[in-house]
Amino acid sequence: MAERMKMRIAVVGAGALGLYYGAMLRRSGLDVKFLLRRDYRAISSGGLNVTSPAGDFHLDGVSCFHDSAAMGEADLVLIGLKTFDNNRMVELVRPLVGEKTALLTLQNGLGNEEILAAAFGAGRVMGGVAFLCANRGEPGTVHHLGQGAIRLGEFGGGVSDRAQAVAGIFNAAGVPCEAVADLMKARWEKLGWNIPFNGLSALTGLTTDRLLAHPPTRRQVTEIMGEVIRAANAQGHSGPVDPASFITRMLELTEPMGDYRPSMMIDRLEGRRLELEAIYGIPLRMGSEKGVEMTRTRMLHALLEAGEKL
Amino acid sequence: MAERMKMRIAVVGAGALGLYYGAMLRRSGLDVKFLLRRDYRAISSGGLNVTSPAGDFHLDGVSCFHDSAAMGEADLVLIGLKTFDNNRMVELVRPLVGEKTALLTLQNGLGNEEILAAAFGAGRVMGGVAFLCANRGEPGTVHHLGQGAIRLGEFGGGVSDRAQAVAGIFNAAGVPCEAVADLMKARWEKLGWNIPFNGLSALTGLTTDRLLAHPPTRRQVTEIMGEVIRAANAQGHSGPVDPASFITRMLELTEPMGDYRPSMMIDRLEGRRLELEAIYGIPLRMGSEKGVEMTRTRMLHALLEAGEKL
Repeated sequence: MAERMKMRIAVVGAGALGLYYGAMLRRSGLDVKFLLRRDYRAISSGGLNVTSPAGDFHLDGVSCFHDSAAMGEADLVLIGLKTFDNNRMVELVRPLVGEKTALLTLQNGLGNEEILAAAFGAGRVMGGVAFLCANRGEPGTVHHLGQGAIRLGEFGGGVSDRAQAVAGIFNAAGVPCEAVADLMKARWEKLGWNIPFNGLSALTGLTTDRLLAHPPTRRQVTEIMGEVIRAANAQGHSGPVDPASFITRMLELTEPMGDYRPSMMIDRLEGRRLELEAIYGIPLRMGSEKGVEMTRTRMLHALLEAGEKL
Repeated sequence: MAERMKMRIAVVGAGALGLYYGAMLRRSGLDVKFLLRRDYRAISSGGLNVTSPAGDFHLDGVSCFHDSAAMGEADLVLIGLKTFDNNRMVELVRPLVGEKTALLTLQNGLGNEEILAAAFGAGRVMGGVAFLCANRGEPGTVHHLGQGAIRLGEFGGGVSDRAQAVAGIFNAAGVPCEAVADLMKARWEKLGWNIPFNGLSALTGLTTDRLLAHPPTRRQVTEIMGEVIRAANAQGHSGPVDPASFITRMLELTEPMGDYRPSMMIDRLEGRRLELEAIYGIPLRMGSEKGVEMTRTRMLHALLEAGEKL
């Protein structure tokens, strides 16, 4: 990877997550190129607007592309594609990959690093879990609503200089970022929140506070968390997670969020596809393979899948 | 109970079920009085219309009441109240009860006979499960769409002369009816269909054929049936039900029903309350009390309850 000041970053999958993190990195002075679809015309002509409780900002002269073949090699490829578009991921990323290119997927759920590793070699691949609340506005605008921290790490495990360097550029850009030694454990821990809250809210239309206020749904939330943690621990991560204290911590984190609408609830309300394979299908299979049958998670997956207009 | 020709029948809870069975009994020549709310004016003035694949018919001079206190004693009280109105059941039935009055609840789920037994003595109480597809049309009209058979029995168990006599009047009226020795077993067997199909269809908006066509939801259907049968068998009914053959039989029965919309799905689509306590709450508690935890049924109950606009 090149020195920080010269670092060439390519953003593939410029939804709210890709636009927000790309904008923050670009604002910090890095060379950021965006592969755009919906927002190409708006950002090429009018620049990129970010609204944020931390202060709105506008970027002019944003480097926009329709086709990744025209973007040239990057030092770091930031991947924010929706996981149901993963069948296109390799072809979109391939033109950006040079000898020393690193790939960082900030996508949801499981199975993303594996696709990149199979195509480009495991050594290039990093992943991260993003705690970001953002959505797209009109073309050319992304609304940052809150949070934004990233926990990233090497697909192969361990804390590398490279992971620490990438964490450094995020922190320098105003995005709290931590390099973790056990990426897969971090991914499963995020699933411990996403699997119950995303699915239950998408299915019932209830915000997180209402799911927790109603004892029978609160019980489902905590029991599903327990299933996820049992499946996570069965994967043999570094140090098992204690289910009871994990659940307590997640509820303490969620209670103050009030009438929060998880992203999957918003996706369902707005008629978009849900990222069911990455968040449910693969974790369910990985649990089963280790002998952990996630009964409630499987039922939630079946009900969510049944509601997809496919 | 009086002789057949003189039998005085009072129908309490004249939704589609009460109107249909009451109309069939009245058409057969019995003295049937209806306690009406919504349909009082229409039936008093214009009579009661039944549409049916077996032939439409019209009844004039139907005996309509607003208040059960004006109805006089009945020999048989037929109860078709929605179970969420059970808090009104005893006061509605009380004026109809004389020394020899028998009570027959054809309501859904569990817990109905117990309320009647506590108020009027267990010896009066019979119950039945109705396999009826019917709904109300405009006031004064009930649409019989198909089926209609009843399995009835004594709350106290065993086949009594009384139960056989009541089965006889239904059969004479063109309603296939069987007196069964183990009413509670019959109720649980009906729950083996209702608990999966009613809830899953109400929650997902999918008809029975689509629930069965999609392997993950089909799996939920059969696993929920298995939970219900395990809980049923734990109640100590006469002869346990074999889960595998029960599931096979229920699927064979359901497949030919095509795009059937279970009553709870229609209730949810039309914004009505669901009979959750009788069909889910009480069976769940009775399972738990016998050490059978119905995990999927409990989750389904929680999700259905969360969707109630209460």
